[in-house]
Amino acid sequence: MSKEVLKIAVAGLGTVGGGTVKLLQNHAAEIALRCGRAVEVSAVSALSKKGLDFDVSGYAWYDDAVEMAKSCDAHVLVELIGGSEGVAKKTVEAALNAGRHVVTANKALIAHHGAALAKLAEAKGVSLNYEAAVAGGIPVIKSIRESLAGNSITKIQGIMNGTCNYILTTMREEGLDFDVVLQDAQNLGYAEADPSFDIDGVDTAHKLAILTAVAFGVEINFDDMYIEGIRHVSATDIQFAEELGYRIKLLGVTSRHNGVVEQRVHPAMVPLKTPLARVEGVFNAVVIDGDEVDRIMQVGRGAGERPTASAVVADITDIARGIQLPTFSIPVGDLESVPTRSMSEHVGEYYVRLMLVDEPGVFADVAAVLRDNDVSMASMIQREREPGEPVPVVLTTHETKEANMMAALATIAAFDKVAEPPRLIRIECA
Amino acid sequence: MSKEVLKIAVAGLGTVGGGTVKLLQNHAAEIALRCGRAVEVSAVSALSKKGLDFDVSGYAWYDDAVEMAKSCDAHVLVELIGGSEGVAKKTVEAALNAGRHVVTANKALIAHHGAALAKLAEAKGVSLNYEAAVAGGIPVIKSIRESLAGNSITKIQGIMNGTCNYILTTMREEGLDFDVVLQDAQNLGYAEADPSFDIDGVDTAHKLAILTAVAFGVEINFDDMYIEGIRHVSATDIQFAEELGYRIKLLGVTSRHNGVVEQRVHPAMVPLKTPLARVEGVFNAVVIDGDEVDRIMQVGRGAGERPTASAVVADITDIARGIQLPTFSIPVGDLESVPTRSMSEHVGEYYVRLMLVDEPGVFADVAAVLRDNDVSMASMIQREREPGEPVPVVLTTHETKEANMMAALATIAAFDKVAEPPRLIRIECA
Repeated sequence: MSKEVLKIAVAGLGTVGGGTVKLLQNHAAEIALRCGRAVEVSAVSALSKKGLDFDVSGYAWYDDAVEMAKSCDAHVLVELIGGSEGVAKKTVEAALNAGRHVVTANKALIAHHGAALAKLAEAKGVSLNYEAAVAGGIPVIKSIRESLAGNSITKIQGIMNGTCNYILTTMREEGLDFDVVLQDAQNLGYAEADPSFDIDGVDTAHKLAILTAVAFGVEINFDDMYIEGIRHVSATDIQFAEELGYRIKLLGVTSRHNGVVEQRVHPAMVPLKTPLARVEGVFNAVVIDGDEVDRIMQVGRGAGERPTASAVVADITDIARGIQLPTFSIPVGDLESVPTRSMSEHVGEYYVRLMLVDEPGVFADVAAVLRDNDVSMASMIQREREPGEPVPVVLTTHETKEANMMAALATIAAFDKVAEPPRLIRIECA
Repeated sequence: MSKEVLKIAVAGLGTVGGGTVKLLQNHAAEIALRCGRAVEVSAVSALSKKGLDFDVSGYAWYDDAVEMAKSCDAHVLVELIGGSEGVAKKTVEAALNAGRHVVTANKALIAHHGAALAKLAEAKGVSLNYEAAVAGGIPVIKSIRESLAGNSITKIQGIMNGTCNYILTTMREEGLDFDVVLQDAQNLGYAEADPSFDIDGVDTAHKLAILTAVAFGVEINFDDMYIEGIRHVSATDIQFAEELGYRIKLLGVTSRHNGVVEQRVHPAMVPLKTPLARVEGVFNAVVIDGDEVDRIMQVGRGAGERPTASAVVADITDIARGIQLPTFSIPVGDLESVPTRSMSEHVGEYYVRLMLVDEPGVFADVAAVLRDNDVSMASMIQREREPGEPVPVVLTTHETKEANMMAALATIAAFDKVAEPPRLIRIECA
């Protein structure tokens, strides 16, 4: 073990930052053996030393992460501050400019500024690694970038937000409504005080934008993505899903079609017979389709101190071992600029729930609207009706274009006898 | 892209060898972009050119793989001949001795000779990569060696033989007996004419021995492993499993306990609520427990031309990118020599099916034997009895030592009223 010690600076000592420091301390001997060199924290930065449950006295302390990124002695800066702008971004830029490798778990930063940062890393000849940014402890970035290097990847589907999956699982298991479960999740610390990034799908979308770039060799494009969260998913829909043989999951799906990509985040009906439907609670899962490998699925913890630190440290050990790859699989200059397909062009199956009053007569009108928009029904469930009371009528469709589906629903929603806005959930079969 | 072309020699042009050549041809542009250099086949070897469905006219042809390993111009020799001895072994040794990197899908070779070959590779400063040897297209070796480099791995469980999983799945779905399904599988080409390596668990054991070494940093030890195949699994046991909330899978399980490893291959009752129980048909799955990452599961195709070629090519692209790691995660000299625990020391839960005649009286005797051997019953199912006819009595136990369970069964098997040898299947809960 004659190689130089690899020195690490950790910016941000919250849950994941603390976990990373402790992991590097506790596993120092194993990591040195595996990497053929020691890997040691040399500098840390946080707003305060208060509340840290580990010893930082041996490390250079910086109040200012950007200053640490500029002037510390580390080979690798680990950014665990979070947020797409501000200190996190300045710290990463300063570290790259100083010729340091960067490891980050910051999905928002990569989703918004990945292209520019990758370009900077490439110019400086250093790594920009972000395994922990997508699906926590699941090695999805390495699998795509390395294990599937002989494949054309065609599609990726993921359950990539543990908070949402926990909420949807609990709603189903306990038969509770969204608001109740969200409140419980907040009390238990599974959901943030401001949960909007998670439950409105933004967090999943950040991760999906990253997967799109690295899987398809295209420029990252967060802005044109379709994003729909889980606020409107009701206990009623979850019940109907079960009855129809589906489970509702918040999915991120990216796929490539003749010169365009489709990137979408939305609740989806996933067939119970597929393994993805069985991924419950806080667990994440990513399903990757490659033209050679067929399909692989990976399941694990998408968040939490230790699983996320495990992924951060994997990125560090790669650097220690001299593994250095283009940020998004291929050189930045070779990334294609590919448009994101409008969601109205999406083709798929749909679940629709209508609340109808005086349902027999009105249903003929609904059926006519579907027919006029070329939407073909696959199945229908109607509950016993009570005269004058709205009753749920659930229908599923064969494959249809989203534009047609939406046009039909707009017409149907305007009917007098339709008591509530129709609920639409996309069915994800393949 | 100024780097030298990486030249590849492929020894063995059967299903996987042919798939590898075709993959490298079809994905040449993508691979060159991802690796920063071209990767090209320069030499091939097989017993005959007959029946090849791809063009080999541009490659140097060798009738003798060992001769190719010695004298071709390739940087990497890909061994896809198979078998632990003979030509495959000689070819790999010759290639390593000639200073070439080796990529192989040969689980038997690594399980039996991995230590010596790793030592040779290390001495020559070249890679010995074998991702395709374990679970085909699933990137389990890379996940262990790289993505979990910050973890102490504690346990691995795998469904690693597609033939067995296909047979067990079909037996359950169709309610058929083992022999019938095996015959069908042979007719369909899912099972070999001589299926013993698969159905007797040897193939799974080869893979497990490799995982044990790379996960725990120990010397490979195939010989002391407990191996039991699926020949004795009956349709009756599969039915009872379902009734008790389990599914029967052929598992390979390796775990580390205070200075010993436990390596075992046997049919196991897996709880239906775990994702592993839902891996059906020819699919493989590997579940890895690490002290930091908690648990990750990977599912995919464990065999077949293209998934296996995908893994072979991943090993090749690693070499093209300059990624070179110790064969079993750490230098050969640092691998610990750790004994494999005797199966009689195994602690677990058990399913036992007895065929009892005149069951009420005899069951008291059975219960007494269990009690006398410190085996505590967890549940019991008995079918309506017909006087004088043997009826199945199924019991499950709480955790117990295997030695106790076996002693009890030996006594019970000798009872007059026990009509058939008792059937024991281990329950795998964690």
